[in-house]
Amino acid sequence: MAHIHLSIDAPGIIGLMLNHPETAAPLNALANSLLVKDKGISRFERELIAAYVSRNNECKFCHRSHRAFAEALAVPEELKLAQILFDNNEPTDISNLSPKMQALMQIAEQVRKDAKGVSREMIQKARDTGADEETIHDTVLIAAAFCMFNRYVDGLGTFAPEWGDETYHHSAERVASSGYSV
Amino acid sequence: MAHIHLSIDAPGIIGLMLNHPETAAPLNALANSLLVKDKGISRFERELIAAYVSRNNECKFCHRSHRAFAEALAVPEELKLAQILFDNNEPTDISNLSPKMQALMQIAEQVRKDAKGVSREMIQKARDTGADEETIHDTVLIAAAFCMFNRYVDGLGTFAPEWGDETYHHSAERVASSGYSV
Repeated sequence: MAHIHLSIDAPGIIGLMLNHPETAAPLNALANSLLVKDKGISRFERELIAAYVSRNNECKFCHRSHRAFAEALAVPEELKLAQILFDNNEPTDISNLSPKMQALMQIAEQVRKDAKGVSREMIQKARDTGADEETIHDTVLIAAAFCMFNRYVDGLGTFAPEWGDETYHHSAERVASSGYSV
Repeated sequence: MAHIHLSIDAPGIIGLMLNHPETAAPLNALANSLLVKDKGISRFERELIAAYVSRNNECKFCHRSHRAFAEALAVPEELKLAQILFDNNEPTDISNLSPKMQALMQIAEQVRKDAKGVSREMIQKARDTGADEETIHDTVLIAAAFCMFNRYVDGLGTFAPEWGDETYHHSAERVASSGYSV
């Protein structure tokens, strides 16, 4: 049970958004502008960053949701990458990803832990492996946004169903086909 | 100089928003829905939470901006409260605020540090001092949102003018009269 009364009961951010549509609208618009976009990096790669930050913040609902969204958007080879990344118990093992994605994941993790620690060297490494300015911008803002979403979900004590629960797969089908909405 | 190239140069989040209007729109809409609202707690009190979280995250641009916005919205007695809060070098000294605001600031600080640590006792204390469910919801989401805004501003290495610079007071006049926009 969440810390606050929710007239419409649903797990994770779903219940919060259904009960608070006035804040859900800009939150979904932000998710659409950052995650439902194939420019610079793909929708799959953007969801991978979201899932990775959520995992490292130990936010079960967001980690499981965005892992499911990444998997729903993946081609077979990418699906294997996501499974290696998230089935591995070592949270910092990103060595199976492309050099560009490794550089972006390093920036995302630094934003999560201590954003002032993002160095010019980290940014240059992302550029050198093929990331453009907009992709670096989006990576920092995706990581920052999930530091918000994770805290919203956990700070209000919401419930996260176990991995395998149909909640995540129903949401993944909807997000893959239509993006984010209440 | 920011970590990424910005065609339009401006300090803090202003430069980021002017160069990235597609993400600025939902970010401003979120700020309007959380901060430009006098229900449960006042606009002044909402800006105080934003400034407090930003200060504790050591994000100079956001701290100085939202302190200026709080001061622009304050009645004289409140102005003194804000000055005591932010001129004091002890970041946890919130003892001059009302019991309700102290309970909400305690929740906001817990969300900032570790959102899973928000306890039922902290929520109950907020209720007992007069906060309704929506105010508790908004407090958690304001704190979470500033964990995003602060990381966005600092993760991209933007510049923060010194306190006293007219940047903050120009923005404060605009925010107080018209809310948040690019």
